Amino acid sequence: MDLDSYLREKRSLVEKALDRYLPQAQGLSETLYRAMRYSLFAGGKRIRPILHLASVEACSGDPMECLGFACALEMIHTYSLIHDDLPSMDNDELRRGRPTNHMVFGEALALLAGDALLTEAFRVIFEEGMRPEQNPLRVLRAAWELAMAAGAQGMVGGQAVDIMSEGKRVEPDVLGFIHSRKTGALIRASVRTGAILCGAPEDVLERLTRYGEALGLAFQIRDDILNEEGDPAKIGKAVKTDRSRGKATYPALYGVEESRKKLLSLVEEAVEAIRDMDSRAEPLRQIALYVARRDH
Amino acid sequence: MDLDSYLREKRSLVEKALDRYLPQAQGLSETLYRAMRYSLFAGGKRIRPILHLASVEACSGDPMECLGFACALEMIHTYSLIHDDLPSMDNDELRRGRPTNHMVFGEALALLAGDALLTEAFRVIFEEGMRPEQNPLRVLRAAWELAMAAGAQGMVGGQAVDIMSEGKRVEPDVLGFIHSRKTGALIRASVRTGAILCGAPEDVLERLTRYGEALGLAFQIRDDILNEEGDPAKIGKAVKTDRSRGKATYPALYGVEESRKKLLSLVEEAVEAIRDMDSRAEPLRQIALYVARRDH
Repeated sequence: MDLDSYLREKRSLVEKALDRYLPQAQGLSETLYRAMRYSLFAGGKRIRPILHLASVEACSGDPMECLGFACALEMIHTYSLIHDDLPSMDNDELRRGRPTNHMVFGEALALLAGDALLTEAFRVIFEEGMRPEQNPLRVLRAAWELAMAAGAQGMVGGQAVDIMSEGKRVEPDVLGFIHSRKTGALIRASVRTGAILCGAPEDVLERLTRYGEALGLAFQIRDDILNEEGDPAKIGKAVKTDRSRGKATYPALYGVEESRKKLLSLVEEAVEAIRDMDSRAEPLRQIALYVARRDH
Repeated sequence: MDLDSYLREKRSLVEKALDRYLPQAQGLSETLYRAMRYSLFAGGKRIRPILHLASVEACSGDPMECLGFACALEMIHTYSLIHDDLPSMDNDELRRGRPTNHMVFGEALALLAGDALLTEAFRVIFEEGMRPEQNPLRVLRAAWELAMAAGAQGMVGGQAVDIMSEGKRVEPDVLGFIHSRKTGALIRASVRTGAILCGAPEDVLERLTRYGEALGLAFQIRDDILNEEGDPAKIGKAVKTDRSRGKATYPALYGVEESRKKLLSLVEEAVEAIRDMDSRAEPLRQIALYVARRDH
C-alpha cells in the first residue's frame, strides 16, 4: 500500500466531515464559529482521526460509519491546542505557521472556542450514535474511553502536571506520567475506540491497546526531539521552547541520542503488537513507521 | 409539600453523588482534583440538578437512576463559572463569598480544572448510561440535548456574544439571544433531559420545554436584578458589576421595575405550562415560585 495516498484520502474524508459537522455560522454566532474553524482547519495532520479509521478497518468495520467519532477526536485535539497556546499556559504565538487562536481572536474568544470544540465533539458523537445503524451501547462505551482519555485522568491531568513541573528537575516517573497522559492517552483512545465501535474481540482490543500505547509515547518523543532540533519552517512554530521553559521532555532527561533509540524501539513494539493481525492492519503498521520519521 | 426540605434533601443527594463521581485524588493528580472540587463544593444551590430530578419525578421516573446525569449538569455549570471568572473573561475575584478558582490555583490550573469538569461531566453520563438498567438510546438522546445546550449554539455561544457586546448598547433581540443561551439553554436542558431519560410522551416533553424556557429566562432576569440591587453579603460576590462593565442585561435595557414585571409573568408562564400535570409536578411548580423570590 502507498501510505501517502492512504493518508491523503483519509485526511480529505475527515476534513469534509469536519466541515459538515461544524459549518460556518451566520449572524451573532459568526465570530465564535470562525474562531473554532480557524484552528480546526489550520492544516493539521489529522493523525488521531486517521488512526481511529485505520483501527476500524483493521477490525473489519466500515470507516464511513465512524467518521463522526473520528472528527470528535480531532475536535478534542484542536481544543487542547487552543487552550495550550493561551498566555496563561504555554503562551505561544505561532502554531502550524500561523498566529495562534488568541493572537487573532483575543483570549476570551479563544478560551470559548476551545470550550465549544470540546462540547461539540461530544455532540457529534451523540448525533451519529443515535442513528439507527449504530449500536448505542458500543457508542457509550467508546465515548467513555474518550472522556477518560481526555479528562482529569488523561490529557488534562497530564497538562496540569506538565505546567506544574515547568522549571523543575523531574524524575523519570513524573515524565512518564506527563507523556502517557498529555499525548499518549488520546492516541491510545483513538485506536481503542475504533475497535470498541466495531465490537472487536478482547484479544484484538488488547493488541491494539499495546500498539496505541507504544505509538502514543513514540509520538510524544518525536515531538520532543523536533522541538529540540527540528526545522521551524517545517513544524510551523518556534523550536527549543521546551528547553527555554524548563519543560520535562525525553531529550532533557535522557539526551537526544537516547531518545531516538527509545523512539525506534517503541515503534518496533507497536508493529510487533499487531504482527498477527491480517493485511487490514497494514495501514496501522505503516503509520507507526511514519511517526518515527515525520519532520513536522 | 415543603419546598425547603425538598431542596435540602435533593441537594444532599446531589452532593454525595458528586463526591462519589469526583473523589479527591492522591499523588500527582492531587492539585487538579483539588481545584475542580474547590469550585464544585463551594456551596452552590444545585438548581440545575434539582430541576432535572424534579422533572424525572414529574415523569414518574426514579430520580436515583438519574443522579449521574444530574451531577453532570452541575459539573458543566461549575466549569462555566470557573472559565467565566478568569481575567480574560469577567475577571471576578469573588464567587459565593470565596476567592474565585484562579485566585487560589492560578490561571493555568483554573483553565484546566474547567476543561476537566466539562470532560468528566460527560464521562459520568457514559459511565451511568452503560449500566444494564439504563436505556442507552435515551441516554444518547439526552446527552445530545445537553451538548447542544452547553455548546456553540447554547451556553458558550451566549457567552461569546455577551463578551463581544460589553460596553455596547444592545438591541432587545441581542439581549434575548444572550439570555436564552447563556443561562436559559442549560436550565431548559436540565428539565428536558429528565423527561427524555424517562421516555416521556411528546406532549409532556412539550409542556416541560415551555416550563424550562420560561424558567430559564426568569432565572437570568432574577440574576440581573440581584446584580443591580442585591445584597453582596447574601449573593457572595460584588454587585453592580454588570453596570460597570456595560453588560447587556434586562435592568439596563428595560429598568428594574419592568424587569421585575417580566420576571413575574415568566414564572406564571412556567407554572401555567405544567398546570395539567399531576401532583408529581408539584416540586417543579414550587421551584418556579422560588426562582422569583430568591435573594442569592
